[in-house]
Amino acid sequence: MKFSILRNRLIESVQDVSKAITSRTTIPILTGIKITASEEGITFTGSDSDISIESFVPKEEDGDEIAVIQQTGGIVLQAKIFGELVKKLPMDIVEIEVANQFQTIIRSGKSNFNLNGLDAEEYPHLPQITEDKVIRIPADILKNLIRQTVFAVSTAETRPILTGVNWSIKGSRLNCIATDSHRLAQRTAEIETAADAEYNIVIPGKSLNELNKILPDSNEPVGIVITDNQVLFKAKHLLFFSRLLEGNYPDTSRLIPTDGKTEIVVNTKEFLQAIDRASLLAKEGQNANVVKLSSVTDIPGTIEITSNSPEIGKVTDRVNCKSIEGEELKISFSSKYMMDALRALEGTEITIRFTGAMRPFIIRPVNDDTTLQLILPVRTY
Amino acid sequence: MKFSILRNRLIESVQDVSKAITSRTTIPILTGIKITASEEGITFTGSDSDISIESFVPKEEDGDEIAVIQQTGGIVLQAKIFGELVKKLPMDIVEIEVANQFQTIIRSGKSNFNLNGLDAEEYPHLPQITEDKVIRIPADILKNLIRQTVFAVSTAETRPILTGVNWSIKGSRLNCIATDSHRLAQRTAEIETAADAEYNIVIPGKSLNELNKILPDSNEPVGIVITDNQVLFKAKHLLFFSRLLEGNYPDTSRLIPTDGKTEIVVNTKEFLQAIDRASLLAKEGQNANVVKLSSVTDIPGTIEITSNSPEIGKVTDRVNCKSIEGEELKISFSSKYMMDALRALEGTEITIRFTGAMRPFIIRPVNDDTTLQLILPVRTY
Repeated sequence: MKFSILRNRLIESVQDVSKAITSRTTIPILTGIKITASEEGITFTGSDSDISIESFVPKEEDGDEIAVIQQTGGIVLQAKIFGELVKKLPMDIVEIEVANQFQTIIRSGKSNFNLNGLDAEEYPHLPQITEDKVIRIPADILKNLIRQTVFAVSTAETRPILTGVNWSIKGSRLNCIATDSHRLAQRTAEIETAADAEYNIVIPGKSLNELNKILPDSNEPVGIVITDNQVLFKAKHLLFFSRLLEGNYPDTSRLIPTDGKTEIVVNTKEFLQAIDRASLLAKEGQNANVVKLSSVTDIPGTIEITSNSPEIGKVTDRVNCKSIEGEELKISFSSKYMMDALRALEGTEITIRFTGAMRPFIIRPVNDDTTLQLILPVRTY
Repeated sequence: MKFSILRNRLIESVQDVSKAITSRTTIPILTGIKITASEEGITFTGSDSDISIESFVPKEEDGDEIAVIQQTGGIVLQAKIFGELVKKLPMDIVEIEVANQFQTIIRSGKSNFNLNGLDAEEYPHLPQITEDKVIRIPADILKNLIRQTVFAVSTAETRPILTGVNWSIKGSRLNCIATDSHRLAQRTAEIETAADAEYNIVIPGKSLNELNKILPDSNEPVGIVITDNQVLFKAKHLLFFSRLLEGNYPDTSRLIPTDGKTEIVVNTKEFLQAIDRASLLAKEGQNANVVKLSSVTDIPGTIEITSNSPEIGKVTDRVNCKSIEGEELKISFSSKYMMDALRALEGTEITIRFTGAMRPFIIRPVNDDTTLQLILPVRTY
């Protein structure tokens, strides 16, 4: 194998595929990046066997020369050291050549690295996926629906299925749900697919977080292919494979209350900042992160957010609501869950609908039915 | 005590004095910030008993009102929580009031914090320093001479005196030296002082690092007062006290070679980048961070920097020199020490003078006698 490549494209591909690579793997060759040069261009691959990422650099793009392939072939190079060194190379063009015994020479200007490589033939094969049905979502919408749900997955391994996000697809409708059983995030979107498409899968939260990092912020369509145990995301020059979680995702629809006793509409930013301040004094002890929200009976249209810590002190913050309807309010909840939910929502105003001090409550942007956040309150008094 | 203050000025003062505060103190009240309001303004104090910082906010500056004092007095508030909450207050003006039992109310807009304070009378007194002789250095030069020396202090507590920077003053000449016995950094500067001034002190490296963080990047003069066991730095509205290290600083002058066998002149940035790349493959084992520098006999005016790791591979980098004079060169040294030294130097070109493979060598900017960096080589072959 021998080729030269523009350094910027090399750095970009190495960074993308490195997202899948971990040093805590039991398969030593997976700490490396596989590089293969074909007549058409160069393919970089990284994998931790749950996630696999493939990035392709064509030899020519939009009439510009990006790489020159002098000899096809492949090699596996240590991801950590290779990733660091490509960023420090002095010139815009990098030459990579495999000599005998998998010794690989990396040249740029007067710099000359000689790395011990591994046989590319030993590298595990990526999942084989037949692309009969492809779903399409623009990259920016896909990134958004990941961001709005993935934070709510469980981090505990006691119920592994909850560490993933449940995607159910029926026709052109995608519904994404994540819950750690104390809170729930839901987002729906319209997708482009075959009319009879029907899937119900659980994608590991970790995979979606990594995918989110490498997808471009553009409306470029991303193709999605789903099989029994794998999902493949296809963007331009990029393939992202993830294993699916096995098992049945719990039915969460009955968790979401349909009735409501109190409904408030507030400015998202003002409310978020008040919760953030109140959480400062709710750091330790049994009620860590717990803040209390109550209506202020003597000032109409005002809610109060309070917290206190016997050692440190207490805080009282007031927020003017756009509207308050229904019963008087007194409820306690995790400030962390509330801030996570508020940051995931879009829109300047939100509606919160409460159904009692110990019932889950739901948060939605005003005039937007595609997103829903649900939080279970805690008992404090 | 009761006053109101512009939030930005409050944040600035709290951040400055917090640099002296550590949670790892054996004196509980020192985890707090002392706040005292006088008729003239508000004084904030933080201390870990080695370093003490005082920041003053006058009630008026350049005709603008900064604070309104309604009642003089004092209080001590937990630095960590107070520092976090002032940054999150909603309005530009903050009111602070001490109620009964050291309960302190912090109000801003609709936010109301109530913190448990401590009696300001219990706070340790700052060192008393009589200002008979004041030395003056512009803040930017002071910051520079700290930056160019302090990184070379020892981090080992085996010889405590080496954890400080030696300042010797004779008349208008200040000489700063730091060494950890493997390398040495020296910087001289002209200062404004009494003609008969003569001092020889050792300032803890930690103190100088903190001072460097809070001094402004301006040529505003900083006053320095030295006593037997304390040094005081005085900038606008800011007092910085540091304990001095006790003991005699070793005489380092005989370490600096006066002769030389090989002298090279190179571009600082090109040389630094080549060392940085070579250090990538010198990470582990006995010779961690060791790189080798040698003259390339068949290409005049070129030096070669190499390193290798049997497991990972090897690297060879070449740098064109502006000039090479003297004997052929072959020397090994710590890439970390070399990069630290190069980053501390100013100027686009440096001179390195070698006196043999096992003798210390010195690095200086071309045409600048005020700075000197010295490194002891290591034996590798």
